[in-house]
Amino acid sequence: MMRPDGRANDELRQIQIVPDFIIHPEGSVLITVGRTKVICNVTIEDKVPPFMRGQKKGWITAEYAMLPRATPERTIRESSRGKLGGRTMEIQRLIGRALRSVVALDEIGERTLWVDCDVIQADGGTRTASITGAFVAMVLALKKALDKKQIARIPVRSYLAATSVGIHPSYGPILDLCYKEDSTTDVDMNIVMNGKGEFVEIQGTGEEATFSEQQLSDLIDLAKKGINQLIDAEKSVIGNILTEQKVGTEK
Amino acid sequence: MMRPDGRANDELRQIQIVPDFIIHPEGSVLITVGRTKVICNVTIEDKVPPFMRGQKKGWITAEYAMLPRATPERTIRESSRGKLGGRTMEIQRLIGRALRSVVALDEIGERTLWVDCDVIQADGGTRTASITGAFVAMVLALKKALDKKQIARIPVRSYLAATSVGIHPSYGPILDLCYKEDSTTDVDMNIVMNGKGEFVEIQGTGEEATFSEQQLSDLIDLAKKGINQLIDAEKSVIGNILTEQKVGTEK
Amino acid sequence: MMRPDGRANDELRQIQIVPDFIIHPEGSVLITVGRTKVICNVTIEDKVPPFMRGQKKGWITAEYAMLPRATPERTIRESSRGKLGGRTMEIQRLIGRALRSVVALDEIGERTLWVDCDVIQADGGTRTASITGAFVAMVLALKKALDKKQIARIPVRSYLAATSVGIHPSYGPILDLCYKEDSTTDVDMNIVMNGKGEFVEIQGTGEEATFSEQQLSDLIDLAKKGINQLIDAEKSVIGNILTEQKVGTEK
Amino acid sequence: MMRPDGRANDELRQIQIVPDFIIHPEGSVLITVGRTKVICNVTIEDKVPPFMRGQKKGWITAEYAMLPRATPERTIRESSRGKLGGRTMEIQRLIGRALRSVVALDEIGERTLWVDCDVIQADGGTRTASITGAFVAMVLALKKALDKKQIARIPVRSYLAATSVGIHPSYGPILDLCYKEDSTTDVDMNIVMNGKGEFVEIQGTGEEATFSEQQLSDLIDLAKKGINQLIDAEKSVIGNILTEQKVGTEK
Amino acid sequence: MMRPDGRANDELRQIQIVPDFIIHPEGSVLITVGRTKVICNVTIEDKVPPFMRGQKKGWITAEYAMLPRATPERTIRESSRGKLGGRTMEIQRLIGRALRSVVALDEIGERTLWVDCDVIQADGGTRTASITGAFVAMVLALKKALDKKQIARIPVRSYLAATSVGIHPSYGPILDLCYKEDSTTDVDMNIVMNGKGEFVEIQGTGEEATFSEQQLSDLIDLAKKGINQLIDAEKSVIGNILTEQKVGTEK
Amino acid sequence: MMRPDGRANDELRQIQIVPDFIIHPEGSVLITVGRTKVICNVTIEDKVPPFMRGQKKGWITAEYAMLPRATPERTIRESSRGKLGGRTMEIQRLIGRALRSVVALDEIGERTLWVDCDVIQADGGTRTASITGAFVAMVLALKKALDKKQIARIPVRSYLAATSVGIHPSYGPILDLCYKEDSTTDVDMNIVMNGKGEFVEIQGTGEEATFSEQQLSDLIDLAKKGINQLIDAEKSVIGNILTEQKVGTEK
Repeated sequence: MMRPDGRANDELRQIQIVPDFIIHPEGSVLITVGRTKVICNVTIEDKVPPFMRGQKKGWITAEYAMLPRATPERTIRESSRGKLGGRTMEIQRLIGRALRSVVALDEIGERTLWVDCDVIQADGGTRTASITGAFVAMVLALKKALDKKQIARIPVRSYLAATSVGIHPSYGPILDLCYKEDSTTDVDMNIVMNGKGEFVEIQGTGEEATFSEQQLSDLIDLAKKGINQLIDAEKSVIGNILTEQKVGTEK
Repeated sequence: MMRPDGRANDELRQIQIVPDFIIHPEGSVLITVGRTKVICNVTIEDKVPPFMRGQKKGWITAEYAMLPRATPERTIRESSRGKLGGRTMEIQRLIGRALRSVVALDEIGERTLWVDCDVIQADGGTRTASITGAFVAMVLALKKALDKKQIARIPVRSYLAATSVGIHPSYGPILDLCYKEDSTTDVDMNIVMNGKGEFVEIQGTGEEATFSEQQLSDLIDLAKKGINQLIDAEKSVIGNILTEQKVGTEK
Repeated sequence: MMRPDGRANDELRQIQIVPDFIIHPEGSVLITVGRTKVICNVTIEDKVPPFMRGQKKGWITAEYAMLPRATPERTIRESSRGKLGGRTMEIQRLIGRALRSVVALDEIGERTLWVDCDVIQADGGTRTASITGAFVAMVLALKKALDKKQIARIPVRSYLAATSVGIHPSYGPILDLCYKEDSTTDVDMNIVMNGKGEFVEIQGTGEEATFSEQQLSDLIDLAKKGINQLIDAEKSVIGNILTEQKVGTEK
Repeated sequence: MMRPDGRANDELRQIQIVPDFIIHPEGSVLITVGRTKVICNVTIEDKVPPFMRGQKKGWITAEYAMLPRATPERTIRESSRGKLGGRTMEIQRLIGRALRSVVALDEIGERTLWVDCDVIQADGGTRTASITGAFVAMVLALKKALDKKQIARIPVRSYLAATSVGIHPSYGPILDLCYKEDSTTDVDMNIVMNGKGEFVEIQGTGEEATFSEQQLSDLIDLAKKGINQLIDAEKSVIGNILTEQKVGTEK
Repeated sequence: MMRPDGRANDELRQIQIVPDFIIHPEGSVLITVGRTKVICNVTIEDKVPPFMRGQKKGWITAEYAMLPRATPERTIRESSRGKLGGRTMEIQRLIGRALRSVVALDEIGERTLWVDCDVIQADGGTRTASITGAFVAMVLALKKALDKKQIARIPVRSYLAATSVGIHPSYGPILDLCYKEDSTTDVDMNIVMNGKGEFVEIQGTGEEATFSEQQLSDLIDLAKKGINQLIDAEKSVIGNILTEQKVGTEK
Repeated sequence: MMRPDGRANDELRQIQIVPDFIIHPEGSVLITVGRTKVICNVTIEDKVPPFMRGQKKGWITAEYAMLPRATPERTIRESSRGKLGGRTMEIQRLIGRALRSVVALDEIGERTLWVDCDVIQADGGTRTASITGAFVAMVLALKKALDKKQIARIPVRSYLAATSVGIHPSYGPILDLCYKEDSTTDVDMNIVMNGKGEFVEIQGTGEEATFSEQQLSDLIDLAKKGINQLIDAEKSVIGNILTEQKVGTEK
């Protein structure tokens, strides 16, 4: 049986990463994954949150939101409801942790990188697109800091990208789920990996379902394939910046 | 003395209106006015708010927000602060009133048009760009409702556009202020007009300053000139839709 | 056709300004405009908000509220709803801007004037009555600061007053709308002027209607007439204070 | 030793109850107790809260607030802080309970009496003045309901009034504390009684202090004396209404 | 007629006070009064709230909450509703005041005692059980502070305990009401006393009822009897600590 | 090198599950895992949330909280802060999903199971202890529903339990982390499995670290061992209930 957009089970959607999309932020990209579009902006602030003060290291924090009509049905703004939903909080915590895993925080001084991921059009995979886009925007922002001599080098240890995989009742294990697939999939897994093939985060959920060790292994193989291609897309935008910095992708 | 971007005092910034920018909403445009960029999405919902029920007419309501890095300094999200600021509320009330002034609400049935204006890049004039862009997105949405036979015709009485004018201490009366001008201007006025040359809204403020009747008259003349050009830009996108509907711009 | 209370179209309602109405504030008045009654209290605080610190100038900020039964139907308290409505925010921003336009903020030192306008009975025109009453309460408060030698003189550049005007479908252009008129008027305009006949703020709205340049001009003429009379009422309370200070009303 | 305003220990402050103070509510009074002034407005709503529905009886609920400058120092509005403080909640629960103790709720039908007590000037005893004033405003509102034939008679079982008593380190047991006395008193008691000499509520607190049974007895005697006088003041306003209804004060 | 659990009118429910119930707090007890169970934890923090700073004395503040299923019907969490209810605020203010009445705050230095009373099972009398349990937990915490030489002695002036009394339509005056009794009682009184037989707080309420002086006197006699027994239960846990400190219970 | 409490790397802490801990809920347990103690209460409500109505199936939702002194330092209550933190939301979503994975929701009718997990003492692993305890409490609640003939059988497909595993820099891969271990561990994974050895949820995080496929495999082996023992502990409490129902644990 065929996936709705005709892709092979191990095929990513089309990726596009537009650098310098918004003029004001230190780093900005528009990432497009199929029909999912996320603006990722990175701001460098010259202070850290209270719990980090005096430790001579920096911090990375993320915020995530969707425009009301990023979705097929209009979603109420979280500013109107007066509070963030649980899903939003989970996603922004995930983005922050993922980015912190590849940055030497002690090399950026007492600074905060604010990462804003705003989904302007959603078709599944917005959190993983946000991580991939935010990584690129962060490197662009750090390049600006390097140019201003705020930092001595770009303190990024590795590339970083994320994708989703799942077990679909009709198609079996599939890579990079669009919304239609995501909403009909029993088992759903978001995987974040670095450029050395190491795991940064695995979040696998069987909402009203379960999965076996063999299925876990199959999903991880799919994810690795997708993440390698995503990192290639990142290299086409920031490869020259990171090559100078000798940020390796070799294991 | 010369305006920062070399424009004549009565010259608008460059306008671009991209229709169908986001795929999900009934009407969607990206409006660009100089460096200001606003996504305007219009949703048609098949019910009205409680205070309107049973009146056999529709309602138009607007929400306005900025991405945190739409601005040179990062702005805290209103969803994080847990409430909307006064400026935001003023702007969304203004957008709603302006659009309602040109629509025959009794011809859209008990439906609500939700108008979402999300500023992704700000350089002054975001509220007036929102009104102009939202008008176009609204017509696109109403066209879709017409095609679905939800309404009998597009119940728009007139074109609608908005711009800002001000009295600058160095340049004198100027049209379509960018942020740099706006922040150094004594008197600042937002004017909304329809395609028949009538006023829909005038909001003139002398923050720590005042203005005379003559100055008011000069500002209105500038605004009229700009609004005519904005309506021309609207016509290039939705002229064919409204012409059929005989929405006139003649006085 | 006759206005509901028999007034001529260019006739203000009866004005009363009671000074020193509440004992605790630095400045306090009860202003009565027809059946609209507002307590205006001004507090002088010896510090400025964070964004003003270190600039050696002061700040004026306003808060506006209505008692639940100021209105014919009981209104839910904003403290119960947990947030301020858009209308409230718009009004308090307007009051603050209007007062700041006639005060030399650099002559009051790093102090904040808190202006509290609490409507105890509403019958239209509460925001303009608030501005007129708050101006008098502010001068009373500044007189107290002068007496305590906190300031060298009363740093008020001019008188200040506000009224509403509108175009009524039956009566035509009218001055100082009561609630019944306001709710049936197509075009509604609040005008704030100083004692020199200059505009401080113009807010004209055609909710589901529009207005022409000629109508704008007629409304402004009505407003000027009303504001002159309001300033006369102010003079009867604070004229002796401001005369000493040579606050002129001449153009 | 003498009380600050020269009163005897068992002497109330001067009382004034102005009926029909605000025009819109069903019942309205301004009560003045010394320098404490409270506007008490009562609204009759033709429904009950969800937890009371279908019981064929009514409900009485109270809200209490202070204007920011009711107090010597400006107090932040609860609407600005976004929530009610504990003191406010305690007071409004107390007012509601006290009023409900003298009304036959099953005789008012499924209606809610909303009691709004807004302190415009505070000098101690605002909660007890609120109860006394609210009782009068409630009777005025019920009279209006009787006149409209919504109810068959005024379903009030008894008069109701409240005062404060306390043990002052210098003056000993005193009646009707002003703010200066209240803030220097060890033991503080609010007592609500009905016209038959029965207790409705006793709230005695020794903040960082304690009191004996003898002291309790002395305070109760003082309170009874004050409450009798307060009920006399109520009779001068609503005596004719309640006499017809044969609301007795005899024990 | 017989009370539901067969107790005499002047009989307390069974009391158990388990010290050191939770391992982390400075002082912790589980108090069981019949089927009511409250965990009382006391934390000593080395600073005071802003309004107390620089006065060289300490502060005691209490928080009170119930688990959702402490009650027969599930209660919505106050954290989900986003605000504390009036009942909760009243209770935590009462607990704080009661504890402060027996502690020499100037002997604990600029420290705050945080008292957390969490009801895990409710069957009436949760606020009075909280006070009794919190007193014991506070003494345990102060003992720890003494052992660490943060304080020179345990600055407790007296034992402290609380109970409820009421007038039941069937049983008459009764001591220590369980939930079933509480919900059918006309007059309900919470009494806090110290070990010297002095009153700390009396809160008597006739919700839709009233009470006479004789009834007040009867209720007080019942309360005194119960409180003496509660203090005996406290002594069995902390008697050895307080005896050394010569905290007397003699009148 | 030795774990702080002397356990072997693959050794669980001591488990205790006390059924019927609180009297009011339909199902209640106190689960103790080492020094971590969680009260798990399950309520059966006879309706479903709005988004589930009319689907003839039930819903399971969880809430999670900690007492302020469950932790070594006092934590501010979420009810005081007025909103739930991201960590709390993540945990309660996880508990709900995990329980739903083993229940046939269409067999419980339009009912909601409210699962309240309240941590009274925390020492690491509170979310996994909550899942294990909540599963037992849920079965107890469903047994009560079966006894009342609300449901035809206990619609639980399998046992369910959860534990944490991690890679510690000194001890290597370890099972069931206490707080001290958790806070010094690079890679941390929570694993939920059912009684058939299938995964329900895997959440693996390398906060500022990463992990390889081999390490993932080692951690999964540890988790399986722990979960088998946890299910044995569950069986000792609810085995007789589920055996009748033939809820198997065989693969």
